[in-house]
Amino acid sequence: MPDSLIASVRFDADGLVPAIAQDTHSGQVLMLAYMNAEALECTLREQRAVYFSRSRGKLWRKGEESGNIQKLIDIRLDCDGDTLLLRVEQVGGVACHTGRAHCFYRAIRNDGWYDAEPVIIDPKQLYTTSTPEE
Amino acid sequence: MPDSLIASVRFDADGLVPAIAQDTHSGQVLMLAYMNAEALECTLREQRAVYFSRSRGKLWRKGEESGNIQKLIDIRLDCDGDTLLLRVEQVGGVACHTGRAHCFYRAIRNDGWYDAEPVIIDPKQLYTTSTPEE
Repeated sequence: MPDSLIASVRFDADGLVPAIAQDTHSGQVLMLAYMNAEALECTLREQRAVYFSRSRGKLWRKGEESGNIQKLIDIRLDCDGDTLLLRVEQVGGVACHTGRAHCFYRAIRNDGWYDAEPVIIDPKQLYTTSTPEE
Repeated sequence: MPDSLIASVRFDADGLVPAIAQDTHSGQVLMLAYMNAEALECTLREQRAVYFSRSRGKLWRKGEESGNIQKLIDIRLDCDGDTLLLRVEQVGGVACHTGRAHCFYRAIRNDGWYDAEPVIIDPKQLYTTSTPEE
């Protein structure tokens, strides 16, 4: 992959850029995570979403534990080059480590946040280790 | 608006949280911007997207110059509380300061980024001043 692709991306002071994953079938926004240059290179090379886990400080191949990988359909860069938008096919239909279809399940009701989306899979069944992806 | 709504949001070290705006009709992801607590409060109170402009260092009422405001349909918070997802009605059909429908117009072809979306409105016609929103 040519350096010019990476050079057009404006990574922040930590070397990261936010990446939005959107379900290619439903259009649902699944999650937001971050990529460094290496994660973006891996994503393009492997045609699956590879993020950089800020909490673990290393590459995070989405679905590496749960099997729920995100196959890359296409990737877009925004006008000022500091955000990526991925269209993905979400294997297993579960993007969130809580076992929900996507991460944006908290909605507002009566001036508070409540859980507006069902848990599809028990999170305990998603992971083979005790450390969920994040 | 109760403080509890704001207290559940994990703002970063700069007091900001990324906010994704998605078109409520088409499902298109329009843009990503940032909110501080005040911007989120204004968004909820005014029922339109109010961001915090990092480049200008102040609140940014989306569409304040162009008229292309984003009416708030609903707002979601993600699992770990550090990203917001807004469903909006994009007045004027143009979210991007380049005059395109949305900001994610750069796609990959032949190992480079190219502009994959048409300019709908001449940016010069969008703004009454020489400083576009960003």
